[in-house]
Amino acid sequence: MTSTNDGKGGGGSFETMSGLPIGDLYEPEGGAPESIGRPGEFPFLRGPYPTMYRGRQWTMRMFAGFGTPEDTNARFKYLLANGQTGLSTAFDMPTLMGYDPDHPLSAGEVGREGVSVASLADMRRLFADIPLDKVTTSMTINAPAIVALAMYFAIAEEQGVPLAKVGGTIQTDILKEFIAQKEWISPPRPSMRIVADMIHFCAKNAPKWHPISISGYHIREAGATAIQELAFTLADGIGYVQAGIDAGLDVDEFAPRLSFFWDVHNDFFEEIAKLRAARRMWATIVRDRFGAKKPESWRLRTHCQTAGVSLTAQQPLNNVARVALQALAAVLGGTQSLHTNSMDETYALPTEDSVKVALRTQQLIADETGVANVVDPLAGSWFVEDLTDRVEAAAWKYIHKIDELGGIVRAVELGYPQREIADSAFEDQRKVDRLERVIVGVNKYVDDVGAAIPTLKIDPEVERAQKAHVTRLKAERDSARAAAALDAVRRACRGTDNLMPPIIDAVKADVTLGEICDVFREVFGVYRDPVFV
Amino acid sequence: MTSTNDGKGGGGSFETMSGLPIGDLYEPEGGAPESIGRPGEFPFLRGPYPTMYRGRQWTMRMFAGFGTPEDTNARFKYLLANGQTGLSTAFDMPTLMGYDPDHPLSAGEVGREGVSVASLADMRRLFADIPLDKVTTSMTINAPAIVALAMYFAIAEEQGVPLAKVGGTIQTDILKEFIAQKEWISPPRPSMRIVADMIHFCAKNAPKWHPISISGYHIREAGATAIQELAFTLADGIGYVQAGIDAGLDVDEFAPRLSFFWDVHNDFFEEIAKLRAARRMWATIVRDRFGAKKPESWRLRTHCQTAGVSLTAQQPLNNVARVALQALAAVLGGTQSLHTNSMDETYALPTEDSVKVALRTQQLIADETGVANVVDPLAGSWFVEDLTDRVEAAAWKYIHKIDELGGIVRAVELGYPQREIADSAFEDQRKVDRLERVIVGVNKYVDDVGAAIPTLKIDPEVERAQKAHVTRLKAERDSARAAAALDAVRRACRGTDNLMPPIIDAVKADVTLGEICDVFREVFGVYRDPVFV
Repeated sequence: MTSTNDGKGGGGSFETMSGLPIGDLYEPEGGAPESIGRPGEFPFLRGPYPTMYRGRQWTMRMFAGFGTPEDTNARFKYLLANGQTGLSTAFDMPTLMGYDPDHPLSAGEVGREGVSVASLADMRRLFADIPLDKVTTSMTINAPAIVALAMYFAIAEEQGVPLAKVGGTIQTDILKEFIAQKEWISPPRPSMRIVADMIHFCAKNAPKWHPISISGYHIREAGATAIQELAFTLADGIGYVQAGIDAGLDVDEFAPRLSFFWDVHNDFFEEIAKLRAARRMWATIVRDRFGAKKPESWRLRTHCQTAGVSLTAQQPLNNVARVALQALAAVLGGTQSLHTNSMDETYALPTEDSVKVALRTQQLIADETGVANVVDPLAGSWFVEDLTDRVEAAAWKYIHKIDELGGIVRAVELGYPQREIADSAFEDQRKVDRLERVIVGVNKYVDDVGAAIPTLKIDPEVERAQKAHVTRLKAERDSARAAAALDAVRRACRGTDNLMPPIIDAVKADVTLGEICDVFREVFGVYRDPVFV
Repeated sequence: MTSTNDGKGGGGSFETMSGLPIGDLYEPEGGAPESIGRPGEFPFLRGPYPTMYRGRQWTMRMFAGFGTPEDTNARFKYLLANGQTGLSTAFDMPTLMGYDPDHPLSAGEVGREGVSVASLADMRRLFADIPLDKVTTSMTINAPAIVALAMYFAIAEEQGVPLAKVGGTIQTDILKEFIAQKEWISPPRPSMRIVADMIHFCAKNAPKWHPISISGYHIREAGATAIQELAFTLADGIGYVQAGIDAGLDVDEFAPRLSFFWDVHNDFFEEIAKLRAARRMWATIVRDRFGAKKPESWRLRTHCQTAGVSLTAQQPLNNVARVALQALAAVLGGTQSLHTNSMDETYALPTEDSVKVALRTQQLIADETGVANVVDPLAGSWFVEDLTDRVEAAAWKYIHKIDELGGIVRAVELGYPQREIADSAFEDQRKVDRLERVIVGVNKYVDDVGAAIPTLKIDPEVERAQKAHVTRLKAERDSARAAAALDAVRRACRGTDNLMPPIIDAVKADVTLGEICDVFREVFGVYRDPVFV
């Protein structure tokens, strides 16, 4: 075993609690095999950066959003005051589906599972007193992602922050909506055109923004295995790279700004293996399949979230332990950003107290356990390396199958990943029913003592207030300017010009998110859930 | 990488959540280097048993005791009903110091930090309706250990369980009392004679009983580093093996029944390295230094407890996460038995609810994370193997120094380990003060919201009841028989006969623990805390 120095490099001195120095990098005499390599180098198995957390801690980014923009703005400030290092926005169901609060389909859902944002005015209230050049923001929104991004960029401009300095991520991953999450508006092909426009616009104008977060999370939560999550997500990534290239970009222009988002479930070592394999697979895909030349293009960077679906309503304090173990796996797997679920998320949106425990869990891992002092500490483990190879091999099989079907968009139209996930979910439920997979407190160690933890209630007043806001906005805005701006969006949809500029103009003219999505529905049509036999 | 089978061996089928088979053992082509070896084989680095948790789960053994014997009996039954697999008894301070509840020094302490057990009648109430051939029991008691063990054996006899079938562990580790915990009665040398008598008696009569649990826990909690804990505990072990040999036993007669007890603190990988190094060091010591021939003698088996000293009174729910991470380190390090601390243990003895969360944390690790499906999963990791080697090398230096001083008993008399630990504790406090070591919620991420968790209160009535019990016992027993039995103990103390038989006779004659310990004080003298410069 060799280590490149005595623990003094990488921007500080690192040692165990007993005072033994920890070196920058551990590898065997003569170096690791080529298939493992070094962190920060192809194939990036050991991490996207050479010094990993020694150089820079992962971003602690708690997904948050409920009620009015003011409610969520207060929660953002609470999290920042408690040591969170990045923002992450949860939108409510109407926003995610592209409906304003005054739409009949929004009834009962406004502000309930996320924040209600229908207009630039709402976005302004959401980020009030938060300087957008000082934080990075993640926004989880897909079908209407382009509208939310237009609003965010407009707010940055209002704050005097140049687009070139705005950093963050928007999910935008519509393929996984068709595969798993089912929050879509238009069919796959026009949806991919919107994505391509966003990639193109960001590549040219907002170089620090990640226009897509290619997300395994929802695929996994829908019942996929870790291997399916890995395979289908990378297949989605292949689809987006192809879309970017088809939009006329060179792969090295936009591949460095693609990012990923994984679920971290219970199986400790399989999750670590998945994160390591993902980096090696993506590096190979981008370099060898798409011919990217820049190492930055090959490098998979990711956000992770502990598995919401693994939490139990029964005995909710057990969730604190579950989340701690999953979060450790995410860190040992080398994530760049992490959301830790709160113990009460199976009941409701998290309370301030429970979200603080979840954030503290990350801080404990970062500051107390010492695991962040070591780069890819499990590398070389005979079991972990073998498992990494086997997880990867199994995922390649799915990717080759999808290639045979004609690519991910076609595979989605055929319902292939959907069926594979449904089969896995069915099989998993059978295992739970037969106690072949244990869920502590649910099918083993059950007790009938109910939970007694406080939960967050959303005031019904939120919906009335948000409806009133959007109604007043529509009444008071310059209606001629709004109509013209919306018409420009419609024309762009019908043509081939990039959609971002007219949508930015439209939100500045107080056109609402619902109105722009109505244009998508009108021009692109509405996707209907297919029935696959 | 090779694996000896496809996941079907070791008593079942093992696979990841995705369904990938997990083999019995992972090692490189051609096998691991000799210094690493295989689990169940010298040097036992990878574990004491070939199949580890695939063959048998670790024992979930929660340390419990408070109030009257009935109170603790109820807690024992609660834990067994909730899936605990072994018992572990916490005695109160008077019992640990060898005083009955009616002794003036016991005032205010009876039943407060453990259960009050002064007589065979108390021990009978403690284990009422718990069949001693069905559970294994651990008893944490040192200076009066021989008396508690005599009582336990007498209760087993009452239940009709032959001594040959009684399984469990008694701590008995008096050397670490002199080094760290300071709950002693007599000076080191007569104390070691009592230990030798227990080892001898158990070797001949109670082959399934572990007469000593050589304990690093209290050494660590007193401020030692992981390396000091490892070194001083193994040095204590060397002292006990020597005492057994000096008592006329062949090392292979008793070495297989020695067991260990480690603290598992925050530094995740250092703790794992410590547990792995401990096994390799002990195997080498017992085989090469003491010439033991049986592999069972070389094999270190251990209980672990998460670090009480790492828990914080501030933000107590953070302790659930801390304990989960430490417990995972214990399991990845290959422990045979585990206590997980409850979140409220910095305030008080744990409530039923909080002890259940701590137990569930072990069950989550066992049943949800999949880590128990793999034998020594971190083996081969370049970092972990290097750290294991370095932790071991640093510990050997201390052991050699103790050898130079004339062995552990002499080193303790000279105050050597005591001084080393004091220096480490001082240095650690300095690091905490300077924020070079972070304690989340204490010196970083502090907030002034107090804890709002329920805590266990001990009824002051407990002390009155226990005093009344022992007073009535002393009044009502056959006083001539008691006096004769106590006199036999006194004669044995003055001579060289094994102390166990007369002490068993004495407890059966209702002689109390305090009375027997008074004889120790009378014959062996009382140790005074030395001042070392």
